[in-house]
Amino acid sequence: MERPKQSRGRLTGMAALLCAAAATGVMVCEADAQQEGRRRRGGQQEARPIEITPDQVAQLTRIANERKLNVDDLLSAAKTFMPSGKHDEYVLFSSGGQSGQVYAIGVPSMRMLRSIAVFTPESWQGYGFAGMNDPVHESLKINGHPVLWGDTHHPALSETAGEYDGEFLFIGDKANARVAVINLRDWETKQIVKNPLTISDHGAAFVTPNTDYVIEGGQYATVLGYGYAPIEEYKKHYRGMVTLWKFDRAKGKIDTDKSFAMELPPYWQDLADAGKGASDGYFFINSFNVEMATGGVERGNPPFEAGASKRDMDYLHIVDWKKAEQVFKAGKFDTINGFPVISLATSIAEGLLHFAPEPKSPHGVDVTPCGKYMVVAGKLDPHVTVYSMEKIKRAIETKNYSTTDEYGVPVLDFDAVKEVQVELGLGPLHTQFDDKGYAYTSLFLDSAVARWSLGGDYAKLHKEQPWKLITKTSVHYNIGHLSAAEGDTVSPDGRFLISMSKWSVDRFLPTGPLLPQNFQLLDIGEPGTAMPVIYDMPFPVGEPHYCQMIKADKLKTWTVYPEVGFNPHTMRLDPNSPRKGDEGVTREGNKVLVKMTSIRSHFKPEHVEVNEGDLVTWRIVSLETTMDATHGFCIGGYNINLSLEPGEYTEFSFIADRPGTYPFYCTEFCSALHLEMMGYLHVKPKSGVVGPVYGPVSGK
Amino acid sequence: MERPKQSRGRLTGMAALLCAAAATGVMVCEADAQQEGRRRRGGQQEARPIEITPDQVAQLTRIANERKLNVDDLLSAAKTFMPSGKHDEYVLFSSGGQSGQVYAIGVPSMRMLRSIAVFTPESWQGYGFAGMNDPVHESLKINGHPVLWGDTHHPALSETAGEYDGEFLFIGDKANARVAVINLRDWETKQIVKNPLTISDHGAAFVTPNTDYVIEGGQYATVLGYGYAPIEEYKKHYRGMVTLWKFDRAKGKIDTDKSFAMELPPYWQDLADAGKGASDGYFFINSFNVEMATGGVERGNPPFEAGASKRDMDYLHIVDWKKAEQVFKAGKFDTINGFPVISLATSIAEGLLHFAPEPKSPHGVDVTPCGKYMVVAGKLDPHVTVYSMEKIKRAIETKNYSTTDEYGVPVLDFDAVKEVQVELGLGPLHTQFDDKGYAYTSLFLDSAVARWSLGGDYAKLHKEQPWKLITKTSVHYNIGHLSAAEGDTVSPDGRFLISMSKWSVDRFLPTGPLLPQNFQLLDIGEPGTAMPVIYDMPFPVGEPHYCQMIKADKLKTWTVYPEVGFNPHTMRLDPNSPRKGDEGVTREGNKVLVKMTSIRSHFKPEHVEVNEGDLVTWRIVSLETTMDATHGFCIGGYNINLSLEPGEYTEFSFIADRPGTYPFYCTEFCSALHLEMMGYLHVKPKSGVVGPVYGPVSGK
Repeated sequence: MERPKQSRGRLTGMAALLCAAAATGVMVCEADAQQEGRRRRGGQQEARPIEITPDQVAQLTRIANERKLNVDDLLSAAKTFMPSGKHDEYVLFSSGGQSGQVYAIGVPSMRMLRSIAVFTPESWQGYGFAGMNDPVHESLKINGHPVLWGDTHHPALSETAGEYDGEFLFIGDKANARVAVINLRDWETKQIVKNPLTISDHGAAFVTPNTDYVIEGGQYATVLGYGYAPIEEYKKHYRGMVTLWKFDRAKGKIDTDKSFAMELPPYWQDLADAGKGASDGYFFINSFNVEMATGGVERGNPPFEAGASKRDMDYLHIVDWKKAEQVFKAGKFDTINGFPVISLATSIAEGLLHFAPEPKSPHGVDVTPCGKYMVVAGKLDPHVTVYSMEKIKRAIETKNYSTTDEYGVPVLDFDAVKEVQVELGLGPLHTQFDDKGYAYTSLFLDSAVARWSLGGDYAKLHKEQPWKLITKTSVHYNIGHLSAAEGDTVSPDGRFLISMSKWSVDRFLPTGPLLPQNFQLLDIGEPGTAMPVIYDMPFPVGEPHYCQMIKADKLKTWTVYPEVGFNPHTMRLDPNSPRKGDEGVTREGNKVLVKMTSIRSHFKPEHVEVNEGDLVTWRIVSLETTMDATHGFCIGGYNINLSLEPGEYTEFSFIADRPGTYPFYCTEFCSALHLEMMGYLHVKPKSGVVGPVYGPVSGK
Repeated sequence: MERPKQSRGRLTGMAALLCAAAATGVMVCEADAQQEGRRRRGGQQEARPIEITPDQVAQLTRIANERKLNVDDLLSAAKTFMPSGKHDEYVLFSSGGQSGQVYAIGVPSMRMLRSIAVFTPESWQGYGFAGMNDPVHESLKINGHPVLWGDTHHPALSETAGEYDGEFLFIGDKANARVAVINLRDWETKQIVKNPLTISDHGAAFVTPNTDYVIEGGQYATVLGYGYAPIEEYKKHYRGMVTLWKFDRAKGKIDTDKSFAMELPPYWQDLADAGKGASDGYFFINSFNVEMATGGVERGNPPFEAGASKRDMDYLHIVDWKKAEQVFKAGKFDTINGFPVISLATSIAEGLLHFAPEPKSPHGVDVTPCGKYMVVAGKLDPHVTVYSMEKIKRAIETKNYSTTDEYGVPVLDFDAVKEVQVELGLGPLHTQFDDKGYAYTSLFLDSAVARWSLGGDYAKLHKEQPWKLITKTSVHYNIGHLSAAEGDTVSPDGRFLISMSKWSVDRFLPTGPLLPQNFQLLDIGEPGTAMPVIYDMPFPVGEPHYCQMIKADKLKTWTVYPEVGFNPHTMRLDPNSPRKGDEGVTREGNKVLVKMTSIRSHFKPEHVEVNEGDLVTWRIVSLETTMDATHGFCIGGYNINLSLEPGEYTEFSFIADRPGTYPFYCTEFCSALHLEMMGYLHVKPKSGVVGPVYGPVSGK
């Protein structure tokens, strides 16, 4: 054999090291040490104030002119660019829309940091690719059927005293009326609950100020409990609902036994927001289609879009959840599909539910940080309507009703509860807040964000007239939600605001008939009235609805699992996890148990022999303890892929029903010898050797 | 009822318009006109050369100091920032690794533009969520089982005369040995072929210069045809392979009937590259584990990582594919699992296959743009080895063999075919090229990109000594592949290079134990030797392997489908597509046919009534013809979600086996009345009304 001519000694030395290391694990340490060194060299250094020399200005000018940038572009670039290794200040947790997932984005760089699989199996994360009885698949069944996607709408960060605490994230699935719990230690989904009353919803998830409850509102009225009734019996048999999922923070899960729902009239309930401060103990839900239109364009009726938009007023639902909790605990509920539901009659009798008129098909209700005001945006009304909690409480106390609705719910007098209406523009949808006494409302039809001044105590924070439009910034195009830094807390940060635009049209290179959405970053922290768009981020993986922005340093993220053998599903050390030395394959009848460890760069065992038809249970643990030393594990052709993060333990099982020779390998590039990190699953056929018989081998 | 106090006339007018529009479709045109106006206002204007005033310099300096940026950061920001509406110059089509998908990224902004679902069902795109017999699911079956994920590795853009032509993209699934065809008209996957010989592979996809063939190389040797043999019979029964998939450009699909494979020795074949220019008609495949190590650390054997790294030399496979095509057409093949395979004996006899020694576990083989040189990077050798096609041809002609391998394949004399070896650093993996006579090689263990000078005719393009290391740039961390602008064509652009780093460690905010990878953008277009990292992009959705960068203006993307009723699966107008006026529900026995149209903002019909147990076939078309006017369509609880892009037709079917009232709705925010774009699927129970019976309704 020929050999390379140069550096023989060096090669031999390296090869020797690799071989020795393979047996001893030394290589891991070597690699880690190198990594550590590199990290230090490449890491952040304390920056000294800079001055830009004339030569450097000339260089900047040349680049700008070559690229046809103007000075505003350079300023925007300077405000958003993140040098290598510098960390973003905020994390935006965004709905991923019909992708079924959640996505985390760094602000101000607007770089997507990671997907988090929630309602849709996702193979990179090994989410739903662990063979038979995969716990993810089990949690995704509805009516016994797998429903392997979701339409994620509204993420809600867990709160303590009205502040994001960085511990948990909740997200609703509109299509299938589910709520998921994500633990922000490891950024993994821990629980999915299916609403037992409705197939689809909309108003989830929203949390109360201490995360006692996760609120899941409905949307399209149905027969509760997955029931059926002809559409002609809409008013009689169809209903809305709101569900209060009790959150057990210690367990990190929703306690379904302590959760309950409330029956609502068959209007289409929309988004919710929980009161805080002055309104603590209440939550608020918008509604539309109080017309109770039932569509039927095919029969010559007005379509839903017209029928549900006829009236000038819909109903803001005002729910006293602390009182409702007492009513539930007192057992004053019915049961539908095995789930406790406080009936409308009980809600009315106990004073849990009041309505206030709200103009024209509202979409968003947003409580100001102090909790004193509720801002409602009726999408077919150019105003936002601001309600006063003080006035609402007084109207409830004094029974200042203008009417009751068809189902007997008292409707508070509009003028008695309204603080003010502020004219902003066409198609107002949602409102966010900053630290300077301003509110920001998205205008769908205007494609703009409006900044307006709050009144009351907020008037002390700014010099504007209260309750007035200050300025607008055009966005591109058709903004839905918007999200400000810590914008749903009792103390928003201001500084940054995201415009979640629904259409991008010409903003980016065309990507086929299906285009990304557009997250535009607005700088709302500059002095003066300007709030320029400083970044356009194509949202490339779904149509997101809402997002929340948390200060990054509030997150106490694990970068490796606390112990080798940790099971992320149970969030504890798994007694079944193999330890170093336990590796092997055992058999009882046709049941085979594999115990495997993985460390750079081999699995142990490297060969697993089973018989066709065996039921194989495979326990695998990563012995790694170094940040980013993730392994993957897949078996080709068997629909199995795991992500084995440092210390992680996983079990999967399958029936080896197809004979053959199946390579398994590490699917996450872990080392220079990553490609060699493989082995074979040998499924011995009942009939003996299968496969082609090769001719006589030539050669030596 | 109360009414809002202001702007009554305006509201009434708008409401009237909405209602009228609903029936006539006028609203669509109105909305489009508004959109068009906005687009013009927000669009790009011709930029005039700028000068940066001292005030503006002060502003930039202030921002830089507040954010602790240095001047290099400002320059990088200016080189990569894209103002709203300005389009990136290049599109990077990247493997999405274990996510199973492809992702498109704009360069230089490094913004992810869109995911393209390939091997994993994806609900935003409605990919694999069309009920029973979904064509995506059918195409993903292996051995009769659904395998609903992939490990995408190497994308390959279609080429004409060695240039990317922007028409198609191919991508391989390492885990399950599949190749997918994506049409770049609509950016959708049109075909998935499963390799009939091996369960997993690695070396896919690579194309010949006119895309005659898509090359799929193997990786871990198995018994071809999904066969079984004990590992002890490795040398006798295990084999490698390479498959040549014939591409039919007119049909936009691989023609499996005209495709064939070649048997290879049971080394682990790795990546491939097709010859061009001087080497047109050949392709080249690396291999490792010519040791034919069979691992077994559990039995005290050296693990694969050590056993497969023992020898100093592996074999570069040199395949004369034009000759192989003739041999195939002449019928000189065997058949394994129904697929034509040219046996090793035939390949040797016909002179289709030669080996050349290559140092130490190579990973990449890359052909220079002119086709004269093959660059091989042996990951355990600090050099790249450059082979000369001229010398290879001469050695083949003169039978200048140093030996034959164990299977009788002639091994060309190393010194006779080697042009040069260039010492670069530790862990060289892959090589790319620019327009100035330089090559760029990734160094995994050094975590660096090396620029080195080419020789031969390339020496005229630069002033350096030929075949010399020029400079290195540190990357973060553990770079695998790298990709230069138009880097695999006969005329690379230079300018930009992506370092696809495998570990990100500390580069970004931690995202749990699972971290993103890091795409770093290097500016290789500046004069001088520096090639700075100018952007760090977290890759948030999988571990990508390779990507290719194409000039954006080569893409002739459709932004709406050519006709209303177009079926993306067949790429033609579908005769089954409903037309306006066809809408309705018909029944034959227990078979129900739904014909539905969708346009902003209603479906027609809005009610679909079926009986429990009916087989429902649902045909739905979007009547939209406006860019970005996408609708979604989902049925809650039934695992169905479609993306109805403008003009798109889709059919799906399901058994209505669960009675109840199921809202369907538009899942892509399309208009101000998007939430009202809904209807009900009523599944009438065999037993009559189900669901709760409500008490007497109070009120009026």
